[in-house]
Parts: sequence; C-alpha cells; structure tokens
Amino acid sequence: MKSYSAATAQLRRRLGAKVVVTDEAALHEASFDSAKIPFRPAAVVRVRKAAEVGVALQLANRLRVPVTTRGRGTTLTGAATPVRGGWVLDLLALDNVKVDEEAGLAHVGAGARILAIQQAAEARGWFYPPDPSSKEHCTIGGNIACNAGGMHGGKYGVTRDFVVALQGFLPTGEWVEWGTATKKFSAGFNLRDLWIGSEGMLGVITGAVLKLIPRPPERWTLLTSFRDEAEALSAALALFRARVQPAICEFLDRGSVLCAERATGKEVFPGQSGRPVILLELAGSAAEVADQRESVLAWAQAHATAHRAAQSREEAEQLWAVRRKCSGAMFELGDAKLNEDIVVPMRNYVKFARFLARLKRDSGLHIPTFGHLADGNLHVNIMYHKAVPAECRAAEQAVQRLMETVVAMGGSISGEHGIGLAKSPFLRIQHSPAQVKAMQAIKHALDPRGILNPGKMFEVFEVWRHPRLEVKLPWDHK
Amino acid sequence: MKSYSAATAQLRRRLGAKVVVTDEAALHEASFDSAKIPFRPAAVVRVRKAAEVGVALQLANRLRVPVTTRGRGTTLTGAATPVRGGWVLDLLALDNVKVDEEAGLAHVGAGARILAIQQAAEARGWFYPPDPSSKEHCTIGGNIACNAGGMHGGKYGVTRDFVVALQGFLPTGEWVEWGTATKKFSAGFNLRDLWIGSEGMLGVITGAVLKLIPRPPERWTLLTSFRDEAEALSAALALFRARVQPAICEFLDRGSVLCAERATGKEVFPGQSGRPVILLELAGSAAEVADQRESVLAWAQAHATAHRAAQSREEAEQLWAVRRKCSGAMFELGDAKLNEDIVVPMRNYVKFARFLARLKRDSGLHIPTFGHLADGNLHVNIMYHKAVPAECRAAEQAVQRLMETVVAMGGSISGEHGIGLAKSPFLRIQHSPAQVKAMQAIKHALDPRGILNPGKMFEVFEVWRHPRLEVKLPWDHK
Repeated sequence: MKSYSAATAQLRRRLGAKVVVTDEAALHEASFDSAKIPFRPAAVVRVRKAAEVGVALQLANRLRVPVTTRGRGTTLTGAATPVRGGWVLDLLALDNVKVDEEAGLAHVGAGARILAIQQAAEARGWFYPPDPSSKEHCTIGGNIACNAGGMHGGKYGVTRDFVVALQGFLPTGEWVEWGTATKKFSAGFNLRDLWIGSEGMLGVITGAVLKLIPRPPERWTLLTSFRDEAEALSAALALFRARVQPAICEFLDRGSVLCAERATGKEVFPGQSGRPVILLELAGSAAEVADQRESVLAWAQAHATAHRAAQSREEAEQLWAVRRKCSGAMFELGDAKLNEDIVVPMRNYVKFARFLARLKRDSGLHIPTFGHLADGNLHVNIMYHKAVPAECRAAEQAVQRLMETVVAMGGSISGEHGIGLAKSPFLRIQHSPAQVKAMQAIKHALDPRGILNPGKMFEVFEVWRHPRLEVKLPWDHK
Repeated sequence: MKSYSAATAQLRRRLGAKVVVTDEAALHEASFDSAKIPFRPAAVVRVRKAAEVGVALQLANRLRVPVTTRGRGTTLTGAATPVRGGWVLDLLALDNVKVDEEAGLAHVGAGARILAIQQAAEARGWFYPPDPSSKEHCTIGGNIACNAGGMHGGKYGVTRDFVVALQGFLPTGEWVEWGTATKKFSAGFNLRDLWIGSEGMLGVITGAVLKLIPRPPERWTLLTSFRDEAEALSAALALFRARVQPAICEFLDRGSVLCAERATGKEVFPGQSGRPVILLELAGSAAEVADQRESVLAWAQAHATAHRAAQSREEAEQLWAVRRKCSGAMFELGDAKLNEDIVVPMRNYVKFARFLARLKRDSGLHIPTFGHLADGNLHVNIMYHKAVPAECRAAEQAVQRLMETVVAMGGSISGEHGIGLAKSPFLRIQHSPAQVKAMQAIKHALDPRGILNPGKMFEVFEVWRHPRLEVKLPWDHK
C-alpha cells in the first residue's frame, strides 16, 4: 500500500491535526466496515464541516490519493473499506437534522443516523419510512450511497423515493447541489438519482433533503404460519391480488423460524415448530387499518395454518421477536455467512421457493431465508464453516447459482445492500457488457483520475477468499 | 441543414421504405412539436419494433447523423424539435400496455399513451397517478424523457416515482435495460433515473415497467375562494400543517379565474368574480376520505371566503370546469404565451405571491398563474402580443426575472416540462458551472459523437426570437 505521506502532510497543514488523524487506533477503526476485511488507510479525515470535504478532494484529485467516504461503516458489502488505502473521510460529525414542518421535508447532514431522523420526524407528526435493520447506527449518507431499503419498501418505497435534494462535492472538489428542496424538479440531467446508489464512487454526499409522509397513527400486527414455503409465498400473492397493501410483510422460511425458536426457546405456534411464517403490519388511519384488517383476517383464515393478532403494542413486540431473533441464531449453523439481499419478481415466487429447496439440498448447507414479500427482496443466508474446505466450495457454488437464477427470473442481485466488494463477482450477471461500459464511462467522466472509492463494483473481489477480523460490532446480531 | 441523403439511403436499405419515410407531409409533421418552431428533418423513422431503433442508432453514430426521438410531440419546450435536422425516430407504434395484476406493475412500450395506461390499470383495480393535461395524447416515452408530472404530484409523486425499469438503446445502438420489474433494485450505477428527465439526449427509451398503486375507490371535490393570492397560499400552508394530503390541490390566481369566468360565461362564486380559488380533491378508501373531509371543511370555514363541495361526480366535473377552461381564455390577453412551470418551496409561497403581484405591475402584462400547491409547481403564463415590440421586451424581461427569483427562493426553473429549447437560456441560473460541466461530461461519455437530440438543454435558444407555426394541435387549449 502506498504511504501518501507527503500528501497527508499537506492536507494536515490545510485542515489541522485534529481533522487529519493518523494514530494507529483511528487507522485501524477506519480500515474495515461490517464486511470485516481490513485495509489500512494513510489517514482519517474527521470532517467537522462540509467545506473540508472540498479541500480534501481537491488535494486528493491533484495528488491522486484514493478517497473512501465513511459513515458508521454498517455496510455488509465492504463498500466503505479503503481497499487502496489513502484517505478515509469520516462524515459522522455532519449529523444535523432539521424538519420543515409545513413542507414535510427534513434537511439532514450525511452523518445523521436514521433513527434520529425518524424520531425528529415523528415528533412533528411526520414519518420517514426507510428502516434498515441497523437504523440505530447507520447514517443517511451511507443509506443514500447504497439506496438502502428495509421492511417498509413494498408500500412506501426505499431511500431513493425519499431524497429530494443532495449537496456534496464532485471528485474534483467542486461543490454541487442536485435537486431542490421541493417535491418536483425537472431541470437538467438528474445527477441526484445517479449519486443515489453509486456507493461513494461518483461524489461525496455531505447533506440531503428528505421527503416525509404523514405519520400513520394506527398500526396492527398479525403473525401467520403456513405448511411450507411455496404455500406461504403463494398466499402472499393472494393477499396482494386482493389489493391489500400491508406496511410490512415479512417472510421467514423454515430455517429462519427454527433459528428464531432456538433463540427464544419457544415455538412460534405451539405444536407447529419450524413452519414458515409471514408477519404482517398494517399502518394508516384508524379507519384505513380497520378496513384492511377484515380482509387480512379473512385471508389468514383461508390460507394460514395458524394466525395470531397482537392486541396491544406489547403483544406486537412479542410477535416481532420472531423476526428480530432469527439472524443471531444462524451462526449456530455455521461460523460464516454469505448474506445475499436478492430480489425476485412476484410472478416467480413459487418457482423461487422450489429453487431454494433444491439449492439447500444440493449444497448440503443451511440457507435460512427471510425477507420483504411486498417488494420481492429476500435475504438468503448461506451458512458454512470456514475451516471446512468442502463447505467453502459449496457456499461459493451456491451463491453463484443463486445469482444466476435470480437474474434469469428477472430479479436483481441486490435490493438494498449494493455491490461494494461482496457482490462485485456477480455484477456482470446482472448487467450486460454495454451496461457495464456505460457505467464505467460515467465513472471516468466524473472522476477521471479514479480517486473516489477505487477497487469497488467493477473489479472482482471474492470476499470469501479474504480472512475476516474477529470483532463484534454494536449492530451485529450474534 | 445537411441533407444526410447517403446515410438515409443506407438506412432505408436496412429498414425498408415503409419505415424510413421522406415524403414532404411526414417531414413537415415531424419538424415541430408543441413549441411550433419547425426544423426540417432528413427522414422520419416510423419504428415498428424496438430493434429498429438499434439499427438506426448504430448507423447514425457511425455516420454522425443527428437523431431526435419523438412520441406525440406534445412537449411545450421544443425538446422533440429536430433543430439539427437528421432523423426523427417516431415511436408511436410501440404502444403495448400489459398489466401484471399481482405485482401491480405495467409493462408498456414507449409509444403507449398515458390515458391508455391509466385505463388498463384502472380496469384491474390499479391506478397510475401521473396525469399531464395532455394525457389523452402524450406518450409514456415522452413523459419519462421530461419527467412529467401533473396534478397528483404532491401526494403520489411524478413519473420518476413510478418507473421501475427502462429498456432502450445507448446512442451507440447497443441495447440496455436499467432496473428490473421489481420494486427494489440496488445493483450498479442507476442509469434508469439518469435517463428519466434526460430529454432524449442520453439514450432512446423503447419500453418501461411502471409501478402502480391500488386504485383509490373514493373521491371528493371541494372548491374554495379567497380574498387574494397571499391569503389563498397561506391557507394552503395551514391545510398541510394539519397533515391533510389532498390527492389534488389546484390553485388559480385572480387572472386565471377571470379567464375561466370569461370562458364559461358565469362567476365561479356568484358575487365574488375574480377571487382566487383552490380546488381540492381527496382520494382514498371511503373511511379515509370521510376522515379528511371533516378536517378540510373545518379548514374551509376558517380560511375561505366561500366554498362548495360536489355532491356527485357530475357536480365535481362542473367544479373542475374552472380549472380546465382557464388556459384557453388566456389567449384573449395576448396572442403569445411564455408558459413557465416553475417550482417554489412552500416556505416562500406568500413571498412568491407578492413577487408575482410586483411582476404583473412592473411588466404591465397579464400573467395568469395556476398550479399544484401540494408540490409547489406553478404555471406562470406570461401573455403578450407578438406584434408589439414593447410587450415582447417586457415578456422577455419578466421571464428572466421570474427564473432568477424562483432559484433565489430555493425553487426550480422547471417542475415537469424540462429544459428542451424553451428553458435553455435559464439552465445556468439553476445550475452552477460545475454542475453543468458534470452534466456535459456525462453527455459526452454516453454520446461521444453528440448525435442524440443535439442543440438542446446546454445551447442557448431563445424561443421568443423564432416565428411559430400557426397550427392548431389536438391538445391545444385555444
């Protein structure tokens, strides 16, 4: 790794030693994200105000220093890993949140945490729906960079659907603003949405304006179980055909339910251990929820082997425990996980359930799967033991087959995590050579020296060949 | 204008004389859009299947022939005008519409009309909200190209919010697909949203997959009037503060109301001639609408000088006549119109009302204004007589001052029409040199020979200096 020591010295003269940090602890902390594959940077730039990003980028562009932007580092794909060293821009201090009450907009800094944004919105009667499971920790900058989703996607949409404007810097260090703090905008090429999901490779986002929706005053939760996965998925289709739009519609397959039951020490439905479940939440006005509740109960009677509605917020929390506890217990099935957030079109749900059964059988691995049925975004967790070569090979083959299958079914290799390092071997399954070439042409047009988040997305990096740090992060399920 | 006759002959050999048309009537028809400023093309390519677009683009790219894509040509900005001649791709025949009932998606060809899409969706209990006023005529390809909006934008969003995938061709003629037919997608740079609103300059869209929402079964319409514009706009803010989300919230200023009254021959509210109005529509389940109706009626009692609710669909249609009739009558105030679809942030509504009063006074022109209050998108119609030089100068100065003011207020020079030719003089008020440079770099990266829709957006074209054809188009209000 190049040391970039002269460049770092220059940057420190510009921004000061409090901002440009090179002590070992700081460099170690910035060397990895949730992928836990470390690459040592030359310096961490602890940004206090947005303008400092411009200064750092100008210098980096002139001196060809790799720059990786970082929020809290919760990404599972390794997108915030400084694989080429250089500087890490830490934007956690840009954490302002201001709600514009009349317009229903939130003005936020890139370092603002999702939970803080949701709380600020809800305190004023508004609602910010995207809710990645790490929402207590992860920042809006990172959420925008990978177009994060969460459980509310089917009804309300993903991060992209709530960003009306972005502020930040081009790789050359020039300040730009894409979009305006309004709900309509059609003036010039839309670089706002090009930046969203571009994983820190086309610019550095320092602030955003988010659209909010009125807070749904009422919620109602129902847990249902099904004979097998295919029946659960085909029941979900029947629900959507009835034009019911649950705010949340979470699926857990047999493997995930068994994990949850191990973790909680009790059966989800007594006497029905390991039956796949769907966890539903309706949200809206009292009248709206009451309306849909009847349809949902009739649907549960017709399709589910058992169902249980929450009579209170406390009971709802108990039902939610199934979903929250399943991930942690997965590590009893293997000490390594390939967590793939693929998307399957609804018309292929049942076909996909059958494929998944074959994949489990053929690979001999545990592959507990859960996810968001209203938008087809399923989390397929391929569990294996890293000390067992046959399992490593089986996992590698399974992930390849999974990706080929979802794309052949008209789906996507990622719904909400992005590419980063982890999905780079599969990008070309999703995208044709012409599509990849167009993306690379845009990358070169905006970042001709390739300083921003180099080594990601287009270069193949096989995460399973790299040793991972044994660290426990605050948002780890384990 | 270059003749491109050898290139056209080659293209005709490839696609046949039925597809590659050069008769005078066809060339004339393709020479202008709703901006009515004609430039004669060398040929019209009447595309019957998407692959022909690829053939035409490959040849155009090799031989450097300008290519302008066209749907029905309803754009007011001149974005579909072949200002450099060359070939016009007419995509009207790609008009398939297929609704995926379970997933709530519509698969459409670029030439499908918005009304046809809406009807196909509604027949299956789904709803496609974007509704530009020319929806009977305009196509989804054009709507995507300029990110069209309409009256439903505030609650439901604009075209961009409903596009999940695009198919089409790069300027080099290579076929690409951006996004998948699912509600989530986070795999690679997002060229889907870069294409949306790029006005035919970065690629040719031949098909799309649209997201639908459940059709709201109930609607309720209310017409309200106010003492003056500032009171109307500040009343709207009070409504939004109460978290009421009308599906439609249309404002008509005094000038627009007077036009509607002239056109219909009667006062909107007897004895209150010329009072600005807000036309509201609630939509949703019966329970939802009933809920909000009470809040809206209380609001009307508190803020409006008069209000009238529709008791039936027929009465609602009568209330809507005010909005539909106002545009046509504007041509009694001048034979030329600069129709500017600016966006103003809500926090500056009252300030903008005062600015508009000053602009009318200072210019001495009629500037009837109406628009969509839930998203800040107002249509400012600067009326003048083209034979009166002083009025032409006043109109030119007024539009310049308008654009500078909305951008200074944090708004946008266009909310739903796009730039095309008409707004090209103002692009650099909205966007900094760094922003324009980034857009041009992307244009050059994807279209290195500059064949797609040349002469638009970045080159200044002052529409008011060009004579306009005296033709009546089917969607003209006049």
